[in-house]
Amino acid sequence: MTPNELSAAFGALADPTRRAILARLTEGDRTVAELSAPFKVSQPAISRHLKVLEGAGLISRSRRATARLSHLEADPLRELTAWLAAHQEYWDESYDRLDALLAALQGKPADEPFSRDE
Amino acid sequence: MTPNELSAAFGALADPTRRAILARLTEGDRTVAELSAPFKVSQPAISRHLKVLEGAGLISRSRRATARLSHLEADPLRELTAWLAAHQEYWDESYDRLDALLAALQGKPADEPFSRDE
Repeated sequence: MTPNELSAAFGALADPTRRAILARLTEGDRTVAELSAPFKVSQPAISRHLKVLEGAGLISRSRRATARLSHLEADPLRELTAWLAAHQEYWDESYDRLDALLAALQGKPADEPFSRDE
Repeated sequence: MTPNELSAAFGALADPTRRAILARLTEGDRTVAELSAPFKVSQPAISRHLKVLEGAGLISRSRRATARLSHLEADPLRELTAWLAAHQEYWDESYDRLDALLAALQGKPADEPFSRDE
């Protein structure tokens, strides 16, 4: 995933309707009409959201007879999760270790997050 | 995290400079000057990015003498990761890997056949 693809994917997630559409697609492929039903927005508005999601690689679209089906693409979401987790891992680990060390030194359990230079 | 906060946080991540700033902050708190150094953008431009990150709750800022320090906030990133991971759950084949990821996010050891207690 290039930096631009990563930006497009995060940008696509920065909208509650688009996130709700993705959540809905975890249940299976859906038509625009099916995806529009739970929302108070028009089908053209949903279509625009689907275009953004498709442009970001988060969904793909195919035809079934006259309907156009949206399908969730797992890989980009997995990469976003990996990006976030990689950064979290860094400080979670260092804080957890420091926590444990300080707790051991002070004879206390390490249930509080380590508070920094204060 | 409300839908609006989630949108703001994902939106803040939709920029490569802001992601690079967050990555840098995993190493520790930094001043604007320190954060600007590796980039070909001005300090005011970096300051604007920091404002977006602060508004999204991804960083907090404090003063040390005349310098203004940026500090990474782990919790919102953890919530974003949890959001993504929850959706991945539906289709992810390697359930064990997800299990381990979620356990790591929650700061708990994953289900393992051995105990880490000594």
